[in-house]
Amino acid sequence: MEAVTAAGAFMRQALLEAARGLGRTSPNPPVGCVIVQGTEVVGRGFHPKAGEPHAEVFALREAGERARGATVYVTLEPCSHHGRTPPCADALIAAGVSRVVVATLDPNPQVAGRGVETLRAAGIDVTVGALESDAARQQAGFRSLVVRHRPWVVAKYAMTLDGKVAAVGEGNGAVSGSLARERAMHWRDELDALAVGSGTLALDRPALTTRGVPGGRDPRPIVFDRHAASDPHARAWRPGGVLVTAPDVRADAHEAAGVTVVRAGTLPDALTHLAGLGISSVLLEGGPTLLGAFLAAELVDEVRVFIAPKVLGAGLSPLVEPVRFMRHAQHLHDVTTELLGPDVLVTGLLNDIPRLSAPGAN
Amino acid sequence: MEAVTAAGAFMRQALLEAARGLGRTSPNPPVGCVIVQGTEVVGRGFHPKAGEPHAEVFALREAGERARGATVYVTLEPCSHHGRTPPCADALIAAGVSRVVVATLDPNPQVAGRGVETLRAAGIDVTVGALESDAARQQAGFRSLVVRHRPWVVAKYAMTLDGKVAAVGEGNGAVSGSLARERAMHWRDELDALAVGSGTLALDRPALTTRGVPGGRDPRPIVFDRHAASDPHARAWRPGGVLVTAPDVRADAHEAAGVTVVRAGTLPDALTHLAGLGISSVLLEGGPTLLGAFLAAELVDEVRVFIAPKVLGAGLSPLVEPVRFMRHAQHLHDVTTELLGPDVLVTGLLNDIPRLSAPGAN
Repeated sequence: MEAVTAAGAFMRQALLEAARGLGRTSPNPPVGCVIVQGTEVVGRGFHPKAGEPHAEVFALREAGERARGATVYVTLEPCSHHGRTPPCADALIAAGVSRVVVATLDPNPQVAGRGVETLRAAGIDVTVGALESDAARQQAGFRSLVVRHRPWVVAKYAMTLDGKVAAVGEGNGAVSGSLARERAMHWRDELDALAVGSGTLALDRPALTTRGVPGGRDPRPIVFDRHAASDPHARAWRPGGVLVTAPDVRADAHEAAGVTVVRAGTLPDALTHLAGLGISSVLLEGGPTLLGAFLAAELVDEVRVFIAPKVLGAGLSPLVEPVRFMRHAQHLHDVTTELLGPDVLVTGLLNDIPRLSAPGAN
Repeated sequence: MEAVTAAGAFMRQALLEAARGLGRTSPNPPVGCVIVQGTEVVGRGFHPKAGEPHAEVFALREAGERARGATVYVTLEPCSHHGRTPPCADALIAAGVSRVVVATLDPNPQVAGRGVETLRAAGIDVTVGALESDAARQQAGFRSLVVRHRPWVVAKYAMTLDGKVAAVGEGNGAVSGSLARERAMHWRDELDALAVGSGTLALDRPALTTRGVPGGRDPRPIVFDRHAASDPHARAWRPGGVLVTAPDVRADAHEAAGVTVVRAGTLPDALTHLAGLGISSVLLEGGPTLLGAFLAAELVDEVRVFIAPKVLGAGLSPLVEPVRFMRHAQHLHDVTTELLGPDVLVTGLLNDIPRLSAPGAN
C-alpha cells in the first residue's frame, strides 16, 4: 500500500488524464501529465492518439510560462528520441521545469531510462516510481506489445453464485445487473479489441459495441473461427475487424467483406499476428471453448469476473478445459473485489505485467 | 444502514455475548445482555444452554446493586412467562433498572411483546429495534424453529473463480485458503447440525468436526441417505447423529450403532423431523446432488460461498439441478462480501428470516 501523499494525489490526476486515451493510442501507450506550481495544477494533458502530440506537450501548452520552476507528474518516462514528435524530455528542459515525477520507466528499448538521464543531466530533479503499479497496470497493453510482442489478454465473464454463465434453455436473461454491464461496456471502450469465438457469433449475434458509453469508441472485433465458416456479414463486423482462422483456410467471403484475415496454427501465433496489427489489448468475452483454450495455453493475462448473487442450479460453465488436479489451477494475484450494485466484481492477474527487460534501470 | 450510536455500540457488545451461545442453546435462542451505568458496562451475560439461566440473569448477577437505574441492552425481548427459569422481565423490574433496549421481539407466541409490556407497565423505558436485523440474523435458527417449525438451512461451498467445487481427478486439493477454512470451522461450531449426502460420506470420509476451533463443539452430523446404505460406522458418526432416509427403509445397523434414524418422504418432511429433534439450524455442506435438491425445493435459506481466485477449467459444479431459464434463478438478498486472505466470501439470504407472526407488535 502506498501512502496518500500530495505527490500521489497529483499522480492520480495524471493517471485519470492518461485514462482518457485508453483504447485510442495503440501502438503508443496511454500517458497523462499534470504540471503543478506549489499546490496548483497549471497544466494537464494526455496522449490522445498515435501521431498526435504526447501528454507533456499538451500540459506544457496549457501551463505556458507557469511551467518554469514547476513540478511535472507524468505516468510514463518522457521520451528522449525523435519519433513522430520531438523528444518530450527536451521540451520539459526548455520549459524550465524544476522537478519531474515519473510513475514508470518506458520499457521501449529506445527510451528505457534515457529520458530520465536526459532530464537529470539538465539538472532537473527526477523521481521514479510514484503509483508505479497502477500506472503499469494502465499501460499493460503497451508494455505487453513492447516487451512480449503480443497483446495483453483480459478474460471477462459474468456468472451466477453457482458458477454458471448461462442457463441451459433458450430465452436466456442477463446474468449481472445494469451497473456491471455498464462497467463491461467501459472496458470495451478502453481495450483495443474484443474477441469472441464463432459459436458466440452465431448464437448470440452480438454487436460487440460500447453502446451507452458517452463518447465511447467501439473496439476492433476479432472472431476466432478455425473454419472461416461464420457469417462474413454478421452485425459484429465493422472496419478494423479481424478473423482469426487456421493456416491454409480460405476466407474469400470475409476478405471481400473487408475483414482482415489472420491465419495462425496456434494461439500464440495468432496473438503475434494481432500485435503486428497494432492491437495491444484484447478483451476476451468467450464463449467457454475460446476462454478454455486461452486458459490452457496460459495466454489469459488478467481475469475480470462479475458474480451475480443468484443460484441457477444448471447451465454452462465459464470455461471448458480439462485440468485434472486442483493443484494445477492457475492462481490470480493482485486480486481486487468491488461491489457493483448487487454483483461482486473480482479481478486479478494470471501473468505479470511486463516490466523493463533491464530491471533496476532507475 | 444504522448509524453507529452509543446504543448501537452496546447492543453490538450484547450481540457478541449472545454469539458465545451459538450452537449450544437450541431449542432456545442465543441471547446476550449488557448492563450499562452511564458509559460503563457493569454487567454482561449470555444464555449458555437450554436449562441454564438466561442472559439477563448472568448480567444482573455481575451488576449487583449497580443495576439500579441502569440501562439494559438485550438482543431478544426478555421473557415474561415461567419456563424452566423465572421470567427475566420480573428480574429486571426487581433489580430497579430504568431503561431496557431490546434488539428483537420474541417470535414465541408465549412472549411476542408481553415481555416489553410487562416492563413498560412497571414504568421502565423500553426501546425496541436496535440492530434488529443483525440480531434477527443471529437468531435465524430459533426464529425458524418457532415460526416455521423447521431448521434454518445454510448452504456452504467453496468454488474457484470459474465455478468449480472440485477438480475431476483424484488427489484433489483444497479450493480455498486457510482463513476461509477457519471461518467455515467456526460456522460448524455455531450451527446445530452439519449435513452431507451419502456420496460425500463415502467419497470424502469427512470427520464433520470443528477441528482447530478453540473451545469448539462439534455439530450434530446428519447424513441424507435414501437407501440407508452408507457405513453405520463411518468416522462422521458420533452421539446425536441423524440418518435421514426414505419411509419404510430399514436401517437396523445404523440404529444398532446409536444413530437416530429419521424416515421422510420429502425434504420438507425431513426438516420437520429435524426440528422435532431440537435442531434449529443446519449447515449444508453438499455435495452437488444434495445442494441441488434443497435448492430445487426452495429449502435453502442462506448461502455462504467462498470464491477462490483461481481458474480450474473443468471440474464439479456446486449444484446439480436443472433450472431452465436465467429468470428462474433464485436471487439472494442482504448480500455481504468479505475478503478472507486470497478468497472472497459472499453471503446472502434466499428466504426471509422469520419475523413475528403479528408484525407491528412493537
